[in-house]
Amino acid sequence: MKHILSIKVRNRPGVMSHVSGLFTRRGFNIDSIAVGVTEDPSVSVITLVVKGDEKTAAQLQGQMLKLADVVDARLMAWNQALIREAVLVRVKCTSGNRSELLGVTEIFHGRVQEITEDSLLIDVQGNPRQITGLMKILDKYGILEVARTGQIALPFAAD
Amino acid sequence: MKHILSIKVRNRPGVMSHVSGLFTRRGFNIDSIAVGVTEDPSVSVITLVVKGDEKTAAQLQGQMLKLADVVDARLMAWNQALIREAVLVRVKCTSGNRSELLGVTEIFHGRVQEITEDSLLIDVQGNPRQITGLMKILDKYGILEVARTGQIALPFAAD
Repeated sequence: MKHILSIKVRNRPGVMSHVSGLFTRRGFNIDSIAVGVTEDPSVSVITLVVKGDEKTAAQLQGQMLKLADVVDARLMAWNQALIREAVLVRVKCTSGNRSELLGVTEIFHGRVQEITEDSLLIDVQGNPRQITGLMKILDKYGILEVARTGQIALPFAAD
Repeated sequence: MKHILSIKVRNRPGVMSHVSGLFTRRGFNIDSIAVGVTEDPSVSVITLVVKGDEKTAAQLQGQMLKLADVVDARLMAWNQALIREAVLVRVKCTSGNRSELLGVTEIFHGRVQEITEDSLLIDVQGNPRQITGLMKILDKYGILEVARTGQIALPFAAD
């Protein structure tokens, strides 16, 4: 079972190593990390995807809240949140399969950012299942390079 | 001036705190961090946006390469790469300004993921300038919640 822990931290030197040191030392199983800025330049948000039951996740939340530069730590259940991830991928592409690949990109609401003689650079965002699905398909064409953000999440209002 | 450092690391306990400890101790100015998985489950990619001249960025690259679990560290100039960031934002919205807000979302190629009586949940991806522009506009309506990934990048082929 997966949980999402959204942690607001003050941008002080060392805060990232305190936070990552904590889940390293305690052996928490972290699936994904994303660090993003907020409207307040002195505060960042770290989104962690934690594998484990609710008790384990709540434990990590409690320990995060004890760290000096942690302002807030919010726990979300995996199925009560909108989860997004962004991916850039350069995939092998010939004139023979280009239109096929453009079709695949469109299905996943991706955008082609560069076409060369033998590759496409695709820019796509979606939930983790969609991204994994797309990557499996692109893998058959030949993935040349990938850059992938960690997962971010916001809770749905209607739950 | 900004540079992008894309670091491939082995997924071993402590690797994140080693990496973040390094740029904390040396006082590098890090603008953004994104940690994403790769096709190889034993390897993650950390994308850092570093403020400073090329020499400073090359120095950080050199020091990263000395860390035990760092497999590769690649430096990209800010203007030679496609840079993307994903954002989820819940913004205040009334029946009176809903169509206006839907128009704004469309301009930024965003998607509305939830509509409530008094809010919209928007999902958008773009370059940092676009995202900052959108956030400025949404700020006037009232931003309720934000989750933002760090920036990821892939080099353009034609440069």
